[in-house]
Amino acid sequence: MSPERPRVGLAVVGAGYWGPNLARNAQKTPAMRLEYLCDLDVDRARSVMGDYSTVRVVGSFEDVLADPAVDAVAIATPAATHYKVAMAALEAGKHVLVEKPLAPSFAEGRELVEAADRYGRVLMLDHTYCYTQAVGYLRNLIRDGELGDLQYLDSVRINLGLVQRDVDVLWDLAPHDLSIFQSILPDGVHPVSVAAHGSDPVRAGRACIVYLTVRLSNGVIAHVHVNWLSPTKIRKMVIGGSARTVVWDDLEPLQRLSIYDRGVECRDPEELGVDGRAATMVSYRTGDMVAPAIQDKEALGAVMAEFADSILQRRQPLTDGRSGLQVLAMLEAASASLAGGGEFVPVREVPAPTSDAVLPRIEVPA
Amino acid sequence: MSPERPRVGLAVVGAGYWGPNLARNAQKTPAMRLEYLCDLDVDRARSVMGDYSTVRVVGSFEDVLADPAVDAVAIATPAATHYKVAMAALEAGKHVLVEKPLAPSFAEGRELVEAADRYGRVLMLDHTYCYTQAVGYLRNLIRDGELGDLQYLDSVRINLGLVQRDVDVLWDLAPHDLSIFQSILPDGVHPVSVAAHGSDPVRAGRACIVYLTVRLSNGVIAHVHVNWLSPTKIRKMVIGGSARTVVWDDLEPLQRLSIYDRGVECRDPEELGVDGRAATMVSYRTGDMVAPAIQDKEALGAVMAEFADSILQRRQPLTDGRSGLQVLAMLEAASASLAGGGEFVPVREVPAPTSDAVLPRIEVPA
Amino acid sequence: MSPERPRVGLAVVGAGYWGPNLARNAQKTPAMRLEYLCDLDVDRARSVMGDYSTVRVVGSFEDVLADPAVDAVAIATPAATHYKVAMAALEAGKHVLVEKPLAPSFAEGRELVEAADRYGRVLMLDHTYCYTQAVGYLRNLIRDGELGDLQYLDSVRINLGLVQRDVDVLWDLAPHDLSIFQSILPDGVHPVSVAAHGSDPVRAGRACIVYLTVRLSNGVIAHVHVNWLSPTKIRKMVIGGSARTVVWDDLEPLQRLSIYDRGVECRDPEELGVDGRAATMVSYRTGDMVAPAIQDKEALGAVMAEFADSILQRRQPLTDGRSGLQVLAMLEAASASLAGGGEFVPVREVPAPTSDAVLPRIEVPA
Amino acid sequence: MSPERPRVGLAVVGAGYWGPNLARNAQKTPAMRLEYLCDLDVDRARSVMGDYSTVRVVGSFEDVLADPAVDAVAIATPAATHYKVAMAALEAGKHVLVEKPLAPSFAEGRELVEAADRYGRVLMLDHTYCYTQAVGYLRNLIRDGELGDLQYLDSVRINLGLVQRDVDVLWDLAPHDLSIFQSILPDGVHPVSVAAHGSDPVRAGRACIVYLTVRLSNGVIAHVHVNWLSPTKIRKMVIGGSARTVVWDDLEPLQRLSIYDRGVECRDPEELGVDGRAATMVSYRTGDMVAPAIQDKEALGAVMAEFADSILQRRQPLTDGRSGLQVLAMLEAASASLAGGGEFVPVREVPAPTSDAVLPRIEVPA
Repeated sequence: MSPERPRVGLAVVGAGYWGPNLARNAQKTPAMRLEYLCDLDVDRARSVMGDYSTVRVVGSFEDVLADPAVDAVAIATPAATHYKVAMAALEAGKHVLVEKPLAPSFAEGRELVEAADRYGRVLMLDHTYCYTQAVGYLRNLIRDGELGDLQYLDSVRINLGLVQRDVDVLWDLAPHDLSIFQSILPDGVHPVSVAAHGSDPVRAGRACIVYLTVRLSNGVIAHVHVNWLSPTKIRKMVIGGSARTVVWDDLEPLQRLSIYDRGVECRDPEELGVDGRAATMVSYRTGDMVAPAIQDKEALGAVMAEFADSILQRRQPLTDGRSGLQVLAMLEAASASLAGGGEFVPVREVPAPTSDAVLPRIEVPA
Repeated sequence: MSPERPRVGLAVVGAGYWGPNLARNAQKTPAMRLEYLCDLDVDRARSVMGDYSTVRVVGSFEDVLADPAVDAVAIATPAATHYKVAMAALEAGKHVLVEKPLAPSFAEGRELVEAADRYGRVLMLDHTYCYTQAVGYLRNLIRDGELGDLQYLDSVRINLGLVQRDVDVLWDLAPHDLSIFQSILPDGVHPVSVAAHGSDPVRAGRACIVYLTVRLSNGVIAHVHVNWLSPTKIRKMVIGGSARTVVWDDLEPLQRLSIYDRGVECRDPEELGVDGRAATMVSYRTGDMVAPAIQDKEALGAVMAEFADSILQRRQPLTDGRSGLQVLAMLEAASASLAGGGEFVPVREVPAPTSDAVLPRIEVPA
Repeated sequence: MSPERPRVGLAVVGAGYWGPNLARNAQKTPAMRLEYLCDLDVDRARSVMGDYSTVRVVGSFEDVLADPAVDAVAIATPAATHYKVAMAALEAGKHVLVEKPLAPSFAEGRELVEAADRYGRVLMLDHTYCYTQAVGYLRNLIRDGELGDLQYLDSVRINLGLVQRDVDVLWDLAPHDLSIFQSILPDGVHPVSVAAHGSDPVRAGRACIVYLTVRLSNGVIAHVHVNWLSPTKIRKMVIGGSARTVVWDDLEPLQRLSIYDRGVECRDPEELGVDGRAATMVSYRTGDMVAPAIQDKEALGAVMAEFADSILQRRQPLTDGRSGLQVLAMLEAASASLAGGGEFVPVREVPAPTSDAVLPRIEVPA
Repeated sequence: MSPERPRVGLAVVGAGYWGPNLARNAQKTPAMRLEYLCDLDVDRARSVMGDYSTVRVVGSFEDVLADPAVDAVAIATPAATHYKVAMAALEAGKHVLVEKPLAPSFAEGRELVEAADRYGRVLMLDHTYCYTQAVGYLRNLIRDGELGDLQYLDSVRINLGLVQRDVDVLWDLAPHDLSIFQSILPDGVHPVSVAAHGSDPVRAGRACIVYLTVRLSNGVIAHVHVNWLSPTKIRKMVIGGSARTVVWDDLEPLQRLSIYDRGVECRDPEELGVDGRAATMVSYRTGDMVAPAIQDKEALGAVMAEFADSILQRRQPLTDGRSGLQVLAMLEAASASLAGGGEFVPVREVPAPTSDAVLPRIEVPA
């Protein structure tokens, strides 16, 4: 590393399940300098870093915020604390990368977004899946019109999961699917309303199985099935289009994406004679399937690179605070539907920035 | 076949997609004697039977009903005609096997059930899946308590399907899942209400994708995803229990059932100390998986054998008219939810028999 | 069927495992007229045809041969009898379709080929796999140069099989692989020598596991693993080429062929600088995979159609006697290697026709 | 770590493909203290350790050997250098863990084994697979008689591999399979002779595809297929027994082992009547399949733990020098067969220890 090349000084906060992954990837990011791993449980943090590390381990978040060597913090604390930790960091002038969900409520999430705008700081969500090669490929397929008109999105994310104490399965798993949807949907398409049905058959005190139906502004349904109680693991998304359909199986590392040139199309009745109209108004295509070659890199490395780059370039990251806020809006509507009778609940709109300090959005090619 | 052994004289009505399968299996059923294949399109029926057959081909259903050699009819005509054809057959004193759905509406289905009761005739639904070895195995697993308390049922049945002119994907595919649920649910558990969300992205004039949530009387959710627009075929049901969970993948002929001795259990807070209560209220089991050896026989042969046997024994078949009526009740509630805003709609109750002629139910071991 | 269109009168001989399939497909072949099913065990043959058939069942093969309505016979008797039955049919002026292997020895197979040449009759092998869409596709891929230079062929065909009394696993299963190789290999490439290693761990008196290495005239190795003792079924062939590689998994009906645009190529050392030469002489390509849409039709129907067509057109069938003889030559060499010490044994050459009556070969497009 | 607990001072030699994995796991091993990463290319080694490490990076192996803080070295240099580096370490009184193969020839391997015996040092092979949970499970299944009599072993290890400059595919990949065989075979069963057939279709100057047949002392065949040119990755081993058969698919992390209670058995002709004897001498069992719950831990951690423990306990490790020597004996016989005409070549015997200093073998429970 040449001395003149600027590096972002980072503190990782939280040494639980995900924090160690953030710390590991930060150390591999050339544009970063990992300064601290911070956790109230200092022994735990020390054991995460191991016996051979020069990275400092601290228990006091205040000390971290007070250190001018720290430009940014990556927050992997329990979901309920995200708002407080992130707000303190922003107020201390730090850039912030935060685990999903951005905050426990839309209102708090909006405050964070506004604070980042006001202070001119990067507020980025660690929507890790959005940085996989697979999602990048999907985004391009859809933007380039390769799929034709979008027909449906269906995501299944089930396995034997830890029944969390502070969130239900909806807030634990569905942010992945909702952030992926958001990342790949064509410009101008946004969620309108959400219905959620769930159950808690193990009497854990929170939903362990949830089915989520999102109505999009183009009339398309996006459906999500999240489940903590399944003994088999499924991570499968199907995105149907009029020209092609893609299946993304994240558990098939050698063939994550399968693009089918097969489908069903409605034909214009005018094109059909009387007989044709009587018999069918639909035509079928049976074509080949292509599984594109996709590099298998750890997405969290790309998250870290984007965080560093957006700070150094003084621009919004790909998964900025507003993207996290839109996910929050869907989660909140889903929770309201769950708590009610499963009816469709409107999704709140994400407000546009008003502050002068707000960082510019820059089109980031996938 | 010894001459004294009684055989059921059968006419198959309808030589379209499914009728030929009925005719083929009837010919292999020792207790049956296939008398006719009947279709308005006699040429089509003739071509189904081929050049080497002694089975008679006719175009007139009236002629079939008038022939005393015909004891029973198997109906594979379009869904919209089921009621008329089945009623005519019952009124002519014939026993009836009918394709799903029993009738286009609950009211018509109930009339058929009452007619069969009144005339003392067998009215059987061709719920083919209920006669597979897999469903028999599932039924026993649940009845014998091997799964423990039922936690959830989830079924996915998607593929590139013919967009039907007379029914939507709900009425086309979901009867399979709903009849399977009905066949394996513990005694006393019944559907309470249904919500359905669907879409028609190819503008076929009817839903091509439907998500169905069935609330059962024991609080459990049974969910179904049916879809005509998927380029990949999935036929997968997961049945979660407190003791074990079963995955049925009908496209894996060598391993259809996988029984996982893995799961999540809520523990009694009393058993846990203060620390335990603070940390978790759930325990995990990670156990082996067993894939039982299952014979791979054509289920339609078992359907035919059950039809013949119930006629000869003068008893209700395993999938009798009332089981078809309960499926109709769920379909009708789902259609109402689809047509409305996706809210939960109560499922109508199947009335008990009142006639004296009604055939007795006999416990049929799986 | 119009009366003026000629049809081939057929007798199927043998009502055991495979004969019923031949009879079933013959009845569906427009250019055929199934006259007889013949088996010494007349009751068995009768039960195969069932109660509703007009096809005649006989016990005497002589009666079949004497009937002028019989133009051709399809032989599905035990392997040890193929020579005698086929020769009698040829001598009676009938065309012959015979199950693999053509005969128990190369010498007897050659006599059959010569007899067919002499009498100007069609002698066809039921190498069923050669009539699948998959093999047709593979043949075209190779002939059109899509795979580039052939690098290797590897076939695994294992399952829990019936341990046969009259043949070992080599003669039971390997004819499938060897006939497929023969059907897809580029013109001019032929087998040179064969080595076989086997074992009989259940002490059945014959090899139950055999590994076969075939050296081809272009230096390429074709390898076959056949095994009666495997609890899992595998039917997988990999054909490696310099441009592409194909994997054929016959147990994946929805994705039988996978064509990988990935591979390894040796580079000309001249193209590389000194450094390159020191580091590697091989380059890698990582490309997409394409799974072509392939129709799923029963291959035996195509076998019957080709048999009828070659008779009516008076030409050699795609899988003629000489193709059966070349498979025999490989089997005989393999048996010699097995009986010896596993060394490579030369494969005998198939003689060219000498008779005047021999039917012409006509290029049959796949 | 308490100060009184002894730890083994380790130097990892070689910072290429595998060395970084050794260094990473050494740092996680409580009974180890990683002192050095050593590589002639110091920059490369430095980049492996990264910016945050306290582990020393050196270029001089002599300096490493001279440091008394180094008790042991782990060697991950190119295969051709293993002998020289390992011998120097043993002569300097260090314990040695070496990558497979132990040495380029049996003679050199034997010298290393004898040197370790003479100096009373641990000489351990990094046969990583032998430390997986799967192999431990297989070993116990076979030793406990759960599989019954061994019938066959078949291993396929193919993928698009780096065509190595210093070894062919046999020496690159087959050591994995041969060391696994050795690790799980019942006591007293040893390899007798080996035949190998290979080819080099990309003209790389060395075999890129090899088929290996190993005849064992109990008459059983163990077969290995290794291939650098396959676009799909397969890592599958089938171990057939008279009572059960196991399939190990290493690319199915959720179901690596499948134990089939299915098989073929030869029956005693005395038990069968005349008819039975005429019909068959084999019986079939069709039973369930069990996929045991297996923990998914990184095997290299267990390698490091075993290396440290055998040093601290002054005993032979599970995969000691002699196990490496027996693998060498098979490789050398295979190379001789490849270079000849593919005939079976006898496998040299591994000599028993003669020195007094040799460390004792201690039965290590799996």
